[in-house]
Amino acid sequence: MVKVNENYLKLKAGYLFPEISKRVNSYIQSHESVNIIKLGIGDVTEPLPEACRNAMGKALNEMGTIKGFKGYGPEQGYLWLREKISENDFVKKGCQITPEEIFVSDGSKCDSSNILDILGNDNLIAVTDPVYPVYVDSNVMTGRTGEPLQNGTYGGLVYLAINENNNFLPEIPEERVDILYLCFPNNPTGATINKQELKKWVDYANKNNTLILFDAAYEAFIQDKDIPHSIYEIEGARNCAIEFRSFSKNAGFTGVRCAFTVIPRNLSGFNSQGEKINLWELWNRRQSTKFNGVSYIVQRGAEAVYSSDGKEEVKNLIDFYMENARIMKNKLNSAGFRVYGGDNAPYVWIKVPDNMSSWDFFDYLLERANVVGTPGSGFGLAGEGYFRLSAFNSRENVINAMERIINI
Amino acid sequence: MVKVNENYLKLKAGYLFPEISKRVNSYIQSHESVNIIKLGIGDVTEPLPEACRNAMGKALNEMGTIKGFKGYGPEQGYLWLREKISENDFVKKGCQITPEEIFVSDGSKCDSSNILDILGNDNLIAVTDPVYPVYVDSNVMTGRTGEPLQNGTYGGLVYLAINENNNFLPEIPEERVDILYLCFPNNPTGATINKQELKKWVDYANKNNTLILFDAAYEAFIQDKDIPHSIYEIEGARNCAIEFRSFSKNAGFTGVRCAFTVIPRNLSGFNSQGEKINLWELWNRRQSTKFNGVSYIVQRGAEAVYSSDGKEEVKNLIDFYMENARIMKNKLNSAGFRVYGGDNAPYVWIKVPDNMSSWDFFDYLLERANVVGTPGSGFGLAGEGYFRLSAFNSRENVINAMERIINI
Repeated sequence: MVKVNENYLKLKAGYLFPEISKRVNSYIQSHESVNIIKLGIGDVTEPLPEACRNAMGKALNEMGTIKGFKGYGPEQGYLWLREKISENDFVKKGCQITPEEIFVSDGSKCDSSNILDILGNDNLIAVTDPVYPVYVDSNVMTGRTGEPLQNGTYGGLVYLAINENNNFLPEIPEERVDILYLCFPNNPTGATINKQELKKWVDYANKNNTLILFDAAYEAFIQDKDIPHSIYEIEGARNCAIEFRSFSKNAGFTGVRCAFTVIPRNLSGFNSQGEKINLWELWNRRQSTKFNGVSYIVQRGAEAVYSSDGKEEVKNLIDFYMENARIMKNKLNSAGFRVYGGDNAPYVWIKVPDNMSSWDFFDYLLERANVVGTPGSGFGLAGEGYFRLSAFNSRENVINAMERIINI
Repeated sequence: MVKVNENYLKLKAGYLFPEISKRVNSYIQSHESVNIIKLGIGDVTEPLPEACRNAMGKALNEMGTIKGFKGYGPEQGYLWLREKISENDFVKKGCQITPEEIFVSDGSKCDSSNILDILGNDNLIAVTDPVYPVYVDSNVMTGRTGEPLQNGTYGGLVYLAINENNNFLPEIPEERVDILYLCFPNNPTGATINKQELKKWVDYANKNNTLILFDAAYEAFIQDKDIPHSIYEIEGARNCAIEFRSFSKNAGFTGVRCAFTVIPRNLSGFNSQGEKINLWELWNRRQSTKFNGVSYIVQRGAEAVYSSDGKEEVKNLIDFYMENARIMKNKLNSAGFRVYGGDNAPYVWIKVPDNMSSWDFFDYLLERANVVGTPGSGFGLAGEGYFRLSAFNSRENVINAMERIINI
């Protein structure tokens, strides 16, 4: 009799974004001519950079010839792409990350959940609260948590609250945790961490043999000079951290699919005898066995992100979305909302007014302003009372959405 | 202290194909001007169909416009692709598989290992021997086996030998197994199963609540009319089987990356109380949480496989590779080798002569004929003494490789 993985049965109702889609679609169906502005899912809207499209078109043509045809590529990604990543994203910024330490993949969502494959089930895991739901759900699905509690959290996880009181910076836990998820610039709050603060976490991790899973998917949006783009800018991070990066948000690859994960060559975990086990080797084995690499065409597109044209186009995209964020923040501030984030991240994080719940505010905005955002409580208990708006949309839509919200 | 998943430490040395690459590269480095013909990895060599390239080029252009830009798509794949698959691969062949039951992914290697995510750890698992190594390794990595044994097998797995004695058709096990991997047309042996024989397995599965994981990645190579292309051609299969399909081998997508998995809507596993749990829902949740869909551009390429031009090009590709297989089989037969497969699959499976081991024959062919194949023992204990040659290569290379082998 085939048994299922019963951990899945602990999961609460639908993953946040499908739930939002459901509510929006249901609203649209009963309000036919409504014009909804979606600032919910953090999905880019501007066209794919020309440099990337040109490179992909060229790759497509190659695939039409015997000589240029590419079959299976390296599961870790083509070396030419890993070299470009190493040089531009790390070495030029003072981080000694080699091409070998970079694993190209089809998405950070996959990597940040698949990474659990190589880690033991008996680790104590800490997440911030609010948090990107995938970190929590992937732990639930693999049996690393207890049952769901009444308040929406799961037993067995350590939740580190981030909120107005601590300026959206988690406090170092008193207990020792084995695995710690950090995401800066933060999704959903838009908060950032400076080098001095991040150094405290790296020191904590090295002292306690904690593994930091550092999600830097939004690093391209950083404007301030003293905010690190990579955890490897911090001394000691090579001994305690894995970093997730993506082409989704900088180059608009959400529909193209390319990301990468950095695992320093000597990074270790431990076996049950307390002996060091190399994590790079485990991940390399995992990817070789369970993954078949990213589309050649897509990897050529990702490579073009590092061309001079590509860099300029990406800079323009970032500037465009950050100007959206600035407009949103200003308008909402002037309308009396308490607004966070938005300075170094494409998200603004609003304190919901009048003690409404996050989902009530979702429905309120949807019905009264026809604007879709993301309820803070969807990101965790401590997100209740907050609301995320994404800066990924056209200028016109952003301005209209702000007008509508202000004029409710 | 971060603990690793110690099950990885049970894995034997490198995954088969990286090991082959290593040996070949080492040989090339010490024999500079050597001209190696690779019939090892089952990787296509002919150009990507023009219909697919045109569709992908068009999709690329769309991505360059505000209106045509596509961000995150449905994690399950776009409906227009799932509809084409449903209609062409199933409904037209008498299988009532709906679009909703099709999950588009970036590869069958991923799907056939990720499927374990939704299944319990306490299932008794059967694989054929020899077998596609991913089935075994993914079970080892997730702790579903015991320790590796001296003979190269793993404790806790049920191995069903396929060899000359049983005409490469496994015998139904006397014990009851919970999960059963079947791959037809078979990789590596090239063997097939007819409807009558497959019906026995479906009946066994339904009687024992066994889940069949049916890998049909090579169905396009089937030439004989009475060989099923899908397990759903067999009555009762909707109640016991998941099927894996791919665009890799029919349309040459090994470097493009697109595949799909079929899970019938009412297919069930069981919880520990013996209650039915819907598997479609678990996989849908898995994919929504841990996967972000396949590149829009790639999905448009896959859709074009079902256009009239695409179908004709795919047919020509299949004919081309199958003519290679016919040539290989004839030449090897006439040279006195005992050769199997190759009639409905792009693989020929050779009985290694003179009681050589599979790896010895690998080195022998590499050194004496500069031809690379795959040692049968790399696919399992019962593969020892056999050798796989792939028909994926140019006509010229196939003919030259056969001449070289015959003239050793």
